[in-house]
Amino acid sequence: MAVYTDVPRTDLDAFVSRFDIGAVLSCEPIAEGIENSNYLLTTATGRYILTLYEARVAPADLPYFVALMDHLAGCGFPCPLPVRDRSGEALHRLAGKPAAIVTFLEGTWPREPTAAHCRALGTATARLHMAGQFFALSRPNDLSVNAWRPIYTPLKEQARAFGPAFGRRVEDELAFLEEYWPHDLPEGVIHADLFPDNVFFRDGRLSGIIDFYFACTDCLVYDLAVCLNAWCFGPGGAFRPLHSAALFEGYQELRPLLPVEIDSLPVLARGAALRFLLTRLHDWFLPQGDALTRRKDPRDLLPIASFHRGVSDSAAYGIDCPA
Amino acid sequence: MAVYTDVPRTDLDAFVSRFDIGAVLSCEPIAEGIENSNYLLTTATGRYILTLYEARVAPADLPYFVALMDHLAGCGFPCPLPVRDRSGEALHRLAGKPAAIVTFLEGTWPREPTAAHCRALGTATARLHMAGQFFALSRPNDLSVNAWRPIYTPLKEQARAFGPAFGRRVEDELAFLEEYWPHDLPEGVIHADLFPDNVFFRDGRLSGIIDFYFACTDCLVYDLAVCLNAWCFGPGGAFRPLHSAALFEGYQELRPLLPVEIDSLPVLARGAALRFLLTRLHDWFLPQGDALTRRKDPRDLLPIASFHRGVSDSAAYGIDCPA
Repeated sequence: MAVYTDVPRTDLDAFVSRFDIGAVLSCEPIAEGIENSNYLLTTATGRYILTLYEARVAPADLPYFVALMDHLAGCGFPCPLPVRDRSGEALHRLAGKPAAIVTFLEGTWPREPTAAHCRALGTATARLHMAGQFFALSRPNDLSVNAWRPIYTPLKEQARAFGPAFGRRVEDELAFLEEYWPHDLPEGVIHADLFPDNVFFRDGRLSGIIDFYFACTDCLVYDLAVCLNAWCFGPGGAFRPLHSAALFEGYQELRPLLPVEIDSLPVLARGAALRFLLTRLHDWFLPQGDALTRRKDPRDLLPIASFHRGVSDSAAYGIDCPA
Repeated sequence: MAVYTDVPRTDLDAFVSRFDIGAVLSCEPIAEGIENSNYLLTTATGRYILTLYEARVAPADLPYFVALMDHLAGCGFPCPLPVRDRSGEALHRLAGKPAAIVTFLEGTWPREPTAAHCRALGTATARLHMAGQFFALSRPNDLSVNAWRPIYTPLKEQARAFGPAFGRRVEDELAFLEEYWPHDLPEGVIHADLFPDNVFFRDGRLSGIIDFYFACTDCLVYDLAVCLNAWCFGPGGAFRPLHSAALFEGYQELRPLLPVEIDSLPVLARGAALRFLLTRLHDWFLPQGDALTRRKDPRDLLPIASFHRGVSDSAAYGIDCPA
């Protein structure tokens, strides 16, 4: 992640002393993720993740994220559990920022996702969607189709640096998606950021899913569109049909997709490609403060969007359509 | 376990509808454990354990057990998490009994414990003890040395069925333990029932510890005495020194024992043997109602107690004493 905030040790000790987790032994910044400041906090009772919420996470949304992790953990879903202090509060302030401690999940994210990883991811995503159906709160997806043009417009001039074809492609995708974005698909809680670095495995088993700070209420199959782009394309944007088939097979083992959801995939996947292209574009030209963030190239998403533009039948994704 | 209580389906549905876990798909009795009625509850969101607390668990102690599981799960310890209903309550009544739903833990208990299992058990026990140091509630161990004679006395007559030597051995052990039971050892939360069927493994890793309904405040090393008897003796009571060495090595990796704790082990282990001998004796002659409980033979503990009686130096347990 990007560590943006330094926490003085005396502040940290005072903060941690409000919890029943023992005294601080160490607190090391974690150099992964791009949204918040994360620290591996080790106390007398074990390891935790301390998160300071930086600008992109709206403080008003934090109770939603905490309640969602509580709900999912209470359903047995392998996500971090927010740790409550002695007064029962999970949300705090530290070094001037909103802050929380969550449990540490064992495992590492797959650097080279295999079809087996994709199958496990599909099953876990279905579990998340099913558990989410019984979650009382909701939060609109503020990074869906209506948000994309407002992100792009102020960056248009700077994006010329990527050449004229780049801008035209973005404009074309925007126009297409604004016209054909599907509605009336089954909705619920989605993670909305299921990239490999948010999904941990141990001994070949999925051991945890982290980073629920884009979670929101949106059409469920959009989560699979994000997974498809993030897990089922190789370097240079080469589609991996066996990864994709495994992803959908794992998902449908628990929650069979409706034909209308399957049919919407090419459009949703183009949208998912554009959504990450645009936030990467934003971060490319407007990095936050003294972020350690490694910028990701927005252009990497273009061949993926092109692939989906060429898909006229979702059978190309290797989905077994239920009868 | 013993399923003692039948739950009518309409009562079950009404009960589960108070939780955000979806409707009941199935609810099957689990034929393991001996204290409570446990069911594998499957709902639209996954698997849970539904427990109805039977006579041996005092209703007044239930808030302690729920708070302890909450605390340990909040420390990242792999124990069941009590599921709270929409009003935040974890403790309920169902079919006239106190009842709770907890999350389901993956894994199976080891039918043939190996030294590797024992090492993992040791480490997990140390984690439990360290997390327990920061748990605010306490509960006396109502099955410790002072409880043993009151359990034995009313069973004395019936115990004659096991022959005269049995009764003499029990009396001898009682007299010895009442005189030499150690005091002033480091105390804290102990599980107090760490038998193999309460410890789950998956892919060779410890995946969960269940059944906290004997947990209490007592000397920490007593937990290891229970483990020693339950994991480190083969059929017929043959001591397995490599299992024992691994148990203590795993434990001391996180929490080195004090010399006084190590020295107390032979006595504590004799006590642990007698404690389980006596509750087995009780269940042998006074089984609860229509229990499906498989009775365990109290006499199996005698060779284990004899082994410890012959130990004059805890080095026999393969413990690396810290300098």
